[in-house]
Amino acid sequence: MPRVSTDQLAARRQHILDGARRCFAAYGYEGATVRRLEQSTGLSRGAIFHYFRDKDALFLALAEQDAARMADVVAEQGLVQVMRDLLATARKPDPGDESSWLGTRLEVSRRLRTDPDFRKRWQAHSAELTAATRDRLERQAANGTLRDDVPVAVVAQYLELVLEGLVSHLAMGLPADALDGVLDVVEQSVRR
Amino acid sequence: MPRVSTDQLAARRQHILDGARRCFAAYGYEGATVRRLEQSTGLSRGAIFHYFRDKDALFLALAEQDAARMADVVAEQGLVQVMRDLLATARKPDPGDESSWLGTRLEVSRRLRTDPDFRKRWQAHSAELTAATRDRLERQAANGTLRDDVPVAVVAQYLELVLEGLVSHLAMGLPADALDGVLDVVEQSVRR
Repeated sequence: MPRVSTDQLAARRQHILDGARRCFAAYGYEGATVRRLEQSTGLSRGAIFHYFRDKDALFLALAEQDAARMADVVAEQGLVQVMRDLLATARKPDPGDESSWLGTRLEVSRRLRTDPDFRKRWQAHSAELTAATRDRLERQAANGTLRDDVPVAVVAQYLELVLEGLVSHLAMGLPADALDGVLDVVEQSVRR
Repeated sequence: MPRVSTDQLAARRQHILDGARRCFAAYGYEGATVRRLEQSTGLSRGAIFHYFRDKDALFLALAEQDAARMADVVAEQGLVQVMRDLLATARKPDPGDESSWLGTRLEVSRRLRTDPDFRKRWQAHSAELTAATRDRLERQAANGTLRDDVPVAVVAQYLELVLEGLVSHLAMGLPADALDGVLDVVEQSVRR
């Protein structure tokens, strides 16, 4: 067998994740069959499951990557920007776009509601997002740009509740046209 | 067969609905078997399904009754009060309480996400809630108690998004302690 470098392994792993993301986004978790995962990654099932134990491990790796990316956006631009990104994604005609978080986010939401085991395992990632949100809010509080009549923890939970409402709204396929204005209201309501 | 008055029919129908509500709240839609519906209503399946075609018809009648009641609360006290009621319900130790809306509301949310037929049929009821919300907001706008820098439609959609986030949050079994403060933020953010 040819030896491959760590970089090559990481690149192949990422290649599989990107293909799987398109596949999950287009067909949903249940609909992303092994055959479709092969098509969207251009690799055999043997190659795919050499990197990921099973479909569930693949989904979790994707969801973790998204959660980390979301935490990065939160750290730099805040949770409202995460919502604006979700909204932009939901409006795209091609849900298979690689940058699409929505498909994964919806599946995570669904599982959090229906699968207590998953809820426990996911706690670390949602804690990461909460921590990133609080950090940013605390920096804004120090800058004097955040409202200071309400504890930062309450502002953080308020923003997370709105995010969850947005995910749910989009999951129901409800119209997204008026939501930019809604997010403006949300953004204003946390400013000083 | 003895003749029964319209009042008696309506009372029996309501009796079945009350028992079914406790049953759905305690066991969820799937878990509310015909046997459990018999136990919680104290009536035979024959009697129950004389009034309602099947379990689905029973659930829909309950959900409709809740939507109408919700619209009443909205008309008198606003959508934030509906959220406060949901929160109070979620904190009750006994989920079988007759006044519990949460069980039904969660099942409606789940179906809206997963069942396009139900989504279509439910449109009339969600339109009723939206209309009640807008009416109240417009009255508040006329009173000068509502913020006037944003269209009423946007404020209404903002409140509905937060409601959906709250339902989703409670459905995931996440802690509800800090949410009173969050609802205060929401209430303030729509005031003038």
